[in-house]
Amino acid sequence: MTHAIGVDIGGTKIAAGLVSEAGELLKRESEPTPDDATKIPAIVADLSERLAGDDKIVGIGIGAAGFTSTDRTTVRFAPNISWVDEPLAEHVSALTDLPVIVENDANAAAWGEFSFGAGEDTDDLLLVTIGTGVGGGIVHHGQLYRGGFGVAAEIGHMRIVPDGIACGCGEHGCFEQYASGSALVRVARERVANGDRGTEALAALADGDPTRITGPALTDLAHGGDALSIELLAELGRWIGEGLAILASILDPRVIAIGGGVAAAGDLLLGPAVDAFETHLPARSHRPQAEVRLAALGNAAGIIGAADLARTEPV
Amino acid sequence: MTHAIGVDIGGTKIAAGLVSEAGELLKRESEPTPDDATKIPAIVADLSERLAGDDKIVGIGIGAAGFTSTDRTTVRFAPNISWVDEPLAEHVSALTDLPVIVENDANAAAWGEFSFGAGEDTDDLLLVTIGTGVGGGIVHHGQLYRGGFGVAAEIGHMRIVPDGIACGCGEHGCFEQYASGSALVRVARERVANGDRGTEALAALADGDPTRITGPALTDLAHGGDALSIELLAELGRWIGEGLAILASILDPRVIAIGGGVAAAGDLLLGPAVDAFETHLPARSHRPQAEVRLAALGNAAGIIGAADLARTEPV
Amino acid sequence: MTHAIGVDIGGTKIAAGLVSEAGELLKRESEPTPDDATKIPAIVADLSERLAGDDKIVGIGIGAAGFTSTDRTTVRFAPNISWVDEPLAEHVSALTDLPVIVENDANAAAWGEFSFGAGEDTDDLLLVTIGTGVGGGIVHHGQLYRGGFGVAAEIGHMRIVPDGIACGCGEHGCFEQYASGSALVRVARERVANGDRGTEALAALADGDPTRITGPALTDLAHGGDALSIELLAELGRWIGEGLAILASILDPRVIAIGGGVAAAGDLLLGPAVDAFETHLPARSHRPQAEVRLAALGNAAGIIGAADLARTEPV
Amino acid sequence: MTHAIGVDIGGTKIAAGLVSEAGELLKRESEPTPDDATKIPAIVADLSERLAGDDKIVGIGIGAAGFTSTDRTTVRFAPNISWVDEPLAEHVSALTDLPVIVENDANAAAWGEFSFGAGEDTDDLLLVTIGTGVGGGIVHHGQLYRGGFGVAAEIGHMRIVPDGIACGCGEHGCFEQYASGSALVRVARERVANGDRGTEALAALADGDPTRITGPALTDLAHGGDALSIELLAELGRWIGEGLAILASILDPRVIAIGGGVAAAGDLLLGPAVDAFETHLPARSHRPQAEVRLAALGNAAGIIGAADLARTEPV
Repeated sequence: MTHAIGVDIGGTKIAAGLVSEAGELLKRESEPTPDDATKIPAIVADLSERLAGDDKIVGIGIGAAGFTSTDRTTVRFAPNISWVDEPLAEHVSALTDLPVIVENDANAAAWGEFSFGAGEDTDDLLLVTIGTGVGGGIVHHGQLYRGGFGVAAEIGHMRIVPDGIACGCGEHGCFEQYASGSALVRVARERVANGDRGTEALAALADGDPTRITGPALTDLAHGGDALSIELLAELGRWIGEGLAILASILDPRVIAIGGGVAAAGDLLLGPAVDAFETHLPARSHRPQAEVRLAALGNAAGIIGAADLARTEPV
Repeated sequence: MTHAIGVDIGGTKIAAGLVSEAGELLKRESEPTPDDATKIPAIVADLSERLAGDDKIVGIGIGAAGFTSTDRTTVRFAPNISWVDEPLAEHVSALTDLPVIVENDANAAAWGEFSFGAGEDTDDLLLVTIGTGVGGGIVHHGQLYRGGFGVAAEIGHMRIVPDGIACGCGEHGCFEQYASGSALVRVARERVANGDRGTEALAALADGDPTRITGPALTDLAHGGDALSIELLAELGRWIGEGLAILASILDPRVIAIGGGVAAAGDLLLGPAVDAFETHLPARSHRPQAEVRLAALGNAAGIIGAADLARTEPV
Repeated sequence: MTHAIGVDIGGTKIAAGLVSEAGELLKRESEPTPDDATKIPAIVADLSERLAGDDKIVGIGIGAAGFTSTDRTTVRFAPNISWVDEPLAEHVSALTDLPVIVENDANAAAWGEFSFGAGEDTDDLLLVTIGTGVGGGIVHHGQLYRGGFGVAAEIGHMRIVPDGIACGCGEHGCFEQYASGSALVRVARERVANGDRGTEALAALADGDPTRITGPALTDLAHGGDALSIELLAELGRWIGEGLAILASILDPRVIAIGGGVAAAGDLLLGPAVDAFETHLPARSHRPQAEVRLAALGNAAGIIGAADLARTEPV
Repeated sequence: MTHAIGVDIGGTKIAAGLVSEAGELLKRESEPTPDDATKIPAIVADLSERLAGDDKIVGIGIGAAGFTSTDRTTVRFAPNISWVDEPLAEHVSALTDLPVIVENDANAAAWGEFSFGAGEDTDDLLLVTIGTGVGGGIVHHGQLYRGGFGVAAEIGHMRIVPDGIACGCGEHGCFEQYASGSALVRVARERVANGDRGTEALAALADGDPTRITGPALTDLAHGGDALSIELLAELGRWIGEGLAILASILDPRVIAIGGGVAAAGDLLLGPAVDAFETHLPARSHRPQAEVRLAALGNAAGIIGAADLARTEPV
């Protein structure tokens, strides 16, 4: 039996794991993302070596936030790392003597959930990750949908409000300005700053420092019964559900899995999301409906998926 | 050499053609769509027989407006024909003794353009048809993207304006309420009814009967230099372009082909559409961009595509 | 002591009353609005005579749905009655030998609420009437704000959603398409037609005939605890509150009174309206805030106000 | 003949003038706005003394950006100056021994335009100032409309796009995020940053430093024929016109004057603004229409108006 290495390169952390053919995460290691991006290949190689130990490794799969090339060798552009057309697979392969593939991180996570998680029972999965931003990955008829240029499923940047909130991508009204953890926190802070009714608990949490209002802290307040925190999660859920209805009208998945840090809010988020999804799905009484569920693999989805892609598609 | 029959069932007309392996439309016939939907299989069989003559036919491909089943045998729901779960392939096959497949009409048209038209040079095509409504079909890596339930690419019903114009599908703000020929005509009639500045030519066209303001008539005025008609086509083009930017962020096609009756406006529509597409594409300076072009096969795309699907995927 | 006659001309009914100097509605009569608008002056005269009896009458005030002239003599345009520049005051005066003034119906109601109802304690009142449509009247520093052409406070037609729902006025996205009783009913019927979750009670009410879903019936369901009906009233309240925040940023009233049939929903509507108003008021922590309350005079506000205007401003 | 002093306190400059009874600006002086707001009364007193010379002065009128009290003595809140409930009139009066009134700066400017400028021929004026932000002032039947709390006509913060661009006031989608000089510049810089088609001239202007793209510079390019700059001014004009249509539905002015720095663009802005205003005015064919024109007094409107208010309403 052979294992593969999965790597998830984010803006603050490089996480890696040893993954079995059955999608088990056997070991896990991480290092901070260095400021100097040229050091990343060596860090990935080092992590891989430590994880491999004496095991035979069939290849390394890397998920990276950003646009990756269609041949899975190169990071075209990454929003948080100063890479332009970085031939990452080649660099890591030279250091490790292993086959290496590079994939968008959300695509890798979608593949992980499809292969071993929330999408195991379907061939048509849409994974939506709700964290600081919003990411997505599409599996169609058992294949990863990567698009003509390898940059498909950038669902965080589909415009849902014309002339809406400005986004770092240069557009206005992008989905992630309404449906992300950052949006949740932004709205909560605005409400406190405006002294709106019902903000007592959130104001006490902030205690003069708005940065203390975070997604997890707000979710805790909601689980503890704070009415405004519950309402803000429900509002976030409604935006998510409305976006899912748009996506379903285009992509027609059988299962939609919601992952990312915000998924920790559970039913407080999922309930309103499903309600809004069903309300806004066009012609809903005449069509089969996707099932919306929480993702299963947590933040390991990207590692597990990347490792499996390395196995199934060695370069 | 063997031919196939392609059929395009619309709300007013059933059009059919004899199509060669090379995608040539050799003969063409049509009949009005009957009020009694149970007569449709016989009409399709009759048209097929007339078209076939003495030629050997490999199969019949039917494109129908509506939701079709994933196994390509059944029309689940059609907005303009009183079918619910109609086993159309079986009914036509029983009358013709030929293999029959049923596909969504826009999907069939996309396959036609991909195989023999505007998408011949790419593996990743999005066809957008702008007529009375807006339809779409996706080809990804050389395969038709049909979705998990066979109802993908219902792009006319993606919501682009929250709380927007009411749509017949039950939702508000659907793309086709802004980006279709019907939308163009509705806006033009509103402008005339309000007595807005610059409406002289359109008012003269209407001459008291607003139904005289049609898409083709307005396009003629625009080609003749009427400033408001040109502006209204440009406004339609901008909506189309904004929608294409949303679609590209999700689907990442290499080529976007614009078909349907409105395409007759040519550059008066395509220019503003391309401008808006490029302006609204997220992170556009960091990504390859799809090429937007006019479709090539006109209203034969559905017939040609359906015939080819029958050939390549006999049941 | 002298009395005045107040008249409220609507699309279906002409209501009139005998009103004391103290704003008491002493007697009330009504007649159906005739199809032939030329008969209206005679009906008004007849109603006035019956109401007056032996009392001395100081004048007749007429509130009419539509645009009225700045000199209070003429109905410029009425949406539901075929009047264009109808010199209504002159016609009624000729039949009654009394001074007559004509005012917009919502303006008259605002004057009534200001003089004897919800605005008695303030000099700066905004009345918002939420019925089939949305109307408004403004009192500023104790004076009716009538605008330069007499058509101010058409708040039902301020646009609150760009490219929104089409309105009979020719524009899109007008306030009354979201914040009226008609909007409430439309949304409820859409939800039932789509078979949305939670629609059991409303579907049972409709029992196959959507027209059975009316504002009062839905309000009854809500008072009985039906979750979706409560949510729909809250949604209506939120739209109302958001509109009030826009109006307050422009008009800066001290009191906002909500009248019209929908006000019967009471706190189920007012609570969410006030919450949304406060949340959306710009720079709210730095400004005094208008108090939002229910109107006090019910559907007599227009009669009482029109009568009082006739008294205070005889022509 | 007696003169009055008018003062305009902005975030960067305190401008003052000696103004005749006929509204002539006889002399003008200015000083930078100090960081320490407690020094402002002394600066105003000093400017007033220098301007007065040997002339008899009837009073001082001060226009200040921010919320002012209904009794015209106090600045409740100013966005750019650290004042909270500052008794400005009392402080300046103590130093000058003259009657002093304090009014919102845009209200003062509206009064100036009404008395001696673009509104001389009407009793019902709406002044809209388009500069860094958007301000407004309303004159109704020859009286300044100040609202119940003195904070009316904050038209820059009426919401025109639900869930729109975030505004410093805490709300989203405020008019000034779309219709101000800042909005113009923001859009232009976004277009250049995205490398959009047609940005050559603006990119050359920026020459790597986006802050070089300013309203005046862009206006110069437009006057020189740059197509994109002309289009961006037209887009700004359309937003302005759409906002004016909303305002007219509520306020019903006879004349709308557009002032502020952006007015320098003249017809390139005014033409599209008037077109959009007329297109979006509800029920436009049934109502008299306000005339939209450029303001007449330039940046002296506030000084002239404040001086006149001091004359006509001495405390």
